[in-house]
Formats: sequence, C-alpha cells, structure tokens
Amino acid sequence: MAAIEDIGEFGLISRIGSRFNVPAGAVGIGDDCAVIPQKTGLDTLVSTDMLIEGVHFLRDDVKPFDLGWKSAAVNLSDIAAMGGKPVATFLSLALPAGTDTAWVDAFIDGYRYVSAVLSCPLLGGDTSASPDRICINVTVLGECESGKAMTRRGAMYGDFIYVTGTLGDSAAGLKVILEGKERDEDAERLIRRHYRPWPRVKWGQALAGIEGVHAMMDISDGIGSDLNHILEASGGAAEVIVSALPMSAEMVRVCAREGWDPWECAINGGEDYELLFTAAPDTDLSSVPHARIGRIIGGSGIGWRDSKKDFQGFRHF
Amino acid sequence: MAAIEDIGEFGLISRIGSRFNVPAGAVGIGDDCAVIPQKTGLDTLVSTDMLIEGVHFLRDDVKPFDLGWKSAAVNLSDIAAMGGKPVATFLSLALPAGTDTAWVDAFIDGYRYVSAVLSCPLLGGDTSASPDRICINVTVLGECESGKAMTRRGAMYGDFIYVTGTLGDSAAGLKVILEGKERDEDAERLIRRHYRPWPRVKWGQALAGIEGVHAMMDISDGIGSDLNHILEASGGAAEVIVSALPMSAEMVRVCAREGWDPWECAINGGEDYELLFTAAPDTDLSSVPHARIGRIIGGSGIGWRDSKKDFQGFRHF
Repeated sequence: MAAIEDIGEFGLISRIGSRFNVPAGAVGIGDDCAVIPQKTGLDTLVSTDMLIEGVHFLRDDVKPFDLGWKSAAVNLSDIAAMGGKPVATFLSLALPAGTDTAWVDAFIDGYRYVSAVLSCPLLGGDTSASPDRICINVTVLGECESGKAMTRRGAMYGDFIYVTGTLGDSAAGLKVILEGKERDEDAERLIRRHYRPWPRVKWGQALAGIEGVHAMMDISDGIGSDLNHILEASGGAAEVIVSALPMSAEMVRVCAREGWDPWECAINGGEDYELLFTAAPDTDLSSVPHARIGRIIGGSGIGWRDSKKDFQGFRHF
Repeated sequence: MAAIEDIGEFGLISRIGSRFNVPAGAVGIGDDCAVIPQKTGLDTLVSTDMLIEGVHFLRDDVKPFDLGWKSAAVNLSDIAAMGGKPVATFLSLALPAGTDTAWVDAFIDGYRYVSAVLSCPLLGGDTSASPDRICINVTVLGECESGKAMTRRGAMYGDFIYVTGTLGDSAAGLKVILEGKERDEDAERLIRRHYRPWPRVKWGQALAGIEGVHAMMDISDGIGSDLNHILEASGGAAEVIVSALPMSAEMVRVCAREGWDPWECAINGGEDYELLFTAAPDTDLSSVPHARIGRIIGGSGIGWRDSKKDFQGFRHF
C-alpha cells in the first residue's frame, strides 16, 4: 500500500484520470480547463481550484479582500490560459463558526472586483460550516470558438517559447512575507503581485486568435515545472535561455538587497499567473507584451542555457 | 459585528448573492442549479457542493466507496431537480498526508459507478494536500432545452404537491448509525439509502417534459425546510397532509422498534434526494412513481394537517 505523498500530485491525478473515459471531441483531465463542445460553434471551458487554509494561505497573513481577489483570479487565469472568454463562476465557501461577517464581506468584495472587471458573474455556489479551517473552491466556466481552445498539446518543433509579463515577482513577494523582510516600495509591489495576480484574459484571447500560436498555459507552479507540462503534452524538448527570462526591476533590486537568487525566483517561483506559450518563429505577436525565452527542440526535458543550476517545480505532496 | 452563525446559511447566501448581478436570461444563486443560456436551443445547468470531514461525514464511519458514490450522487441530484441531462462533473479533492492510495481508489470507484450509470464523465478537477481533514468539492454540468429548466419558481395557486419515492429513510438510517442501534435487514436498507442515494435523473427529465409540472427541487434538507424554498420562490402557502407522506415499510418498522417518530424522520430528515414538485390538478403523472402530499394555497407558510407538531429544517450554522 502506498500513501498519496509517495505517488505525488501528478501521480494521483493520472490515477484518477485513467479511470474515466473522455467523450469524443472533449478535453478532459490534464489541461488548464476541460473543453466540452456545445451544439453550435462554441466550446464550454471549465476549471476548478480548491484553496485550503494552512496549505494555500494563512488566515492571519492574508487580508480577506486579497483572498477573495486571488480565489477568483487564479481560476479566471485558467480560462485565460485557454484563450477563452469567462462566462460565470461558482463559489463554495466553508467557514468556521465565529467567522465575522465583515470578513466574508471583504472576501466577497475582492472576489467581486476581479469578477466585475472581467465581466464574469458569480452564479452559484455552496456555503457550509467548517470545524476549523476556511476552505474555498471556485469553479469557472468560459467559452471559446469551437476547436479554438489553446491547449498544452500544440507545441511544434522549432517553435519559440514565450512568456507574458515578468517572472518571479510573486515568489519574491512571498519570500518577503515569510521571512519578515523589510517592506519598502519595491517589496510592497512584489507582495501585491503575490496577493493580487491579474488573470491575463485579454492577452490569452488575443494570442488564441493568432494563427502561429500553438500551445499555451498559465504559470502557476513556475516555468521550471509548467514548461514540462507543455513538453509532456506536445512531445519534444525545450532549450531555455536563462538570461532571457523577463524580470521586474523591483524583483531584481529586492533580491540584490536580500542576497537572493533572482533566477531561482523566476524559474521555480509559482503563482505569477503569466502566460507561457509557443509560436512559430515568424509569428506577429506585437499585440501582446511578451518575452522570448527559448525554443522547442528535439529530444526530451529542458536544457537551461547560461546556467549551471538544475531547477524543479513545486510539489504539493 | 455579527458572526456567520448569527445570520445563518441562508442569510450568508443572500448576503453574497445580493452583491452580484445575474445576466439577462440566466438563473443565478438560489435554485438547485444555475442556468446559463447557450447560443442555440440549449441551456447549461451548473451546481456545486462541498463535503467536509467532520461536518458532512465522519471518516471512520463511511466507506470510501460510499463517500465517492454520495459525492457524485448529491450533485447529480441537483441536475435531476432541474429536469436536466448530466454532461460532466469536476472533482476537487484535498487529502491529508498518509491517506492510503487504496482509499482513493475505492472513493473513485464509488464516484465512477454513479457517473457511469448516468453516463456523466469526470472531466477535470483539482487535487491538493490538506493539513488534517478530507475536503471534497464536486461541480456538475448539465443541460436542458432552452427555457425548460424546472426551477423552484413556477408553483401556482391550486397546484398539488408531490414527492417521488419515500421520505425519511436516509434520516432513519443515519440515526441507526449515530445511536449504534441494531442493524437488521431493515436497518441496513435504510443505511444504504443514507450512504448511496440515487439521483432521480430519469424521473426529473420525465417530469420536466410534462406540461402541468410547474416547480421542482430535490429534497436535501427535508421537506419541512425544502418546501419553504419553493414557497419563497413562487409565493403562496402550502397545506401538507402529514398522513399522506410516503414512508417505506422498513423505516416504519425500525422507528416502531426504536420508539422514534417516523413523521419526524419523514419531514425533518434530510438527504433523501427524492424530488419535490408541484403540478396542476389534472396532470397525468403516471410515468413517474409519486405520492400526492398536499397543495399550494393562498397565504404564507406551511400548514401541517393531521399533526400538532411544528417542523423545521436543518440549519448548517
């Protein structure tokens, strides 16, 4: 008998996934969203995420507004990762007795802010008592044109690899919080990136509309781990130029001050919720801010150029 | 400042719901499922439910197969309650370190059994570590013909009130478990009804196709509570003939043996997952097993005839 920590998160997922058939035309377990064809020219996209106090957040550290924001944002980021349009969210909220209604109100305000800006209403959910920990589950529905969902499967030999925005800000912000470091203006900006990630819905939709873009996902565990998911789904290997990874000036300055390795943050740091995508070399990407970080080559695994380090992603178990 | 237990589950839901707008043509918070119009002649139905160890189940009491069964079944029951066809489910599963993979396999087997019989694939989810308690969230998607979802809103003056199956079996089964009573053949059948409820998907679809059926929901908290939801949504009052409530012979025998009040189980006992619906008096309901228990009248509240008792539903907080 094995315990779940022996098989790991991805072992557990494949163990569950192997027991269910996926209907023809649908995408099941293993991408940012499931894809379910509708009767006409649209596909329904679905993603769900659970956040548990003590695992994904510490109640005393995070403001309820930020927690509400992040609960909505990380799910909407999965719709962004498919190039979809958000349609509605569904919120399950289990709260211990004694939770102040002001806490709930602030949580909902944060959740609503992100929902409102992205025109994505909350249309249902579940509320429950919890013996001790706050437990949150969000399911998001989106849609896209039939067959146009941008999965992890389409990367092709010779594609360049890109990311939007900058990498490692969220991880460096979290490090400031956990290690109790000085919170100057730079550090506060990184902390904000950690607590209030912005789902790249507009960019995702723009990229999904560009012919040469082949594969896409959002960066939740760090590219050191997430890029492997594209390689597993698409085949091939990746060569990444570490010196080309886009970093914010704030992140570089805070790392310099604290003696941290900024590349470690950029590669292994999770929760940036930027988009990672591949595209044919001659693709016009001028409509979306992006940085080219490498290319898809033959073979397997990730080769890190300009770096002697070996990086790995975050493991849940 | 109020704590959440002061405003109650329904207070919390309306507090959250009041802050979000529902798009035209959609049904949001407050029915068994949300209803989202698709581009063509179909509506998407969505429901989500969270189950937390120590609140909704005790790990040592429930077999993982039964817990998986129930997790799928209670969600599919919400699709049944709208008269919909199940399309797919999404499972979030947070497990403490040390959880045996055999436990997970048995859980998934139970979940899969219900899913397979109802042709409803698991298409995605989330897995996570949990510090201590098992936490489960299931989201289910269904569909129905545009505008045909059977909500709680349609009950009309003069409608008869009906339920499918028998009431109180699950509650009596739970009472046998919690009070450690003798498990004879009758008791075992009640326990099975508690652990393995069957979502009335076929009956729900049949009823939704009958012209005179006006409002429908599933019975999760007991009709003493659930019937109020129909009255709140539709207006009017209800007169219920307590002696007409359908009860199984097993439930009546076990209650007689233990000195329990069978009407208490039938009215306040939750988790039967039968359907509660209203229909015009001359409606042909012969295609679905049902019992007539009362009618919709003018006024407000529920009048219990043939009974001096005052019954109330289960409160989560």
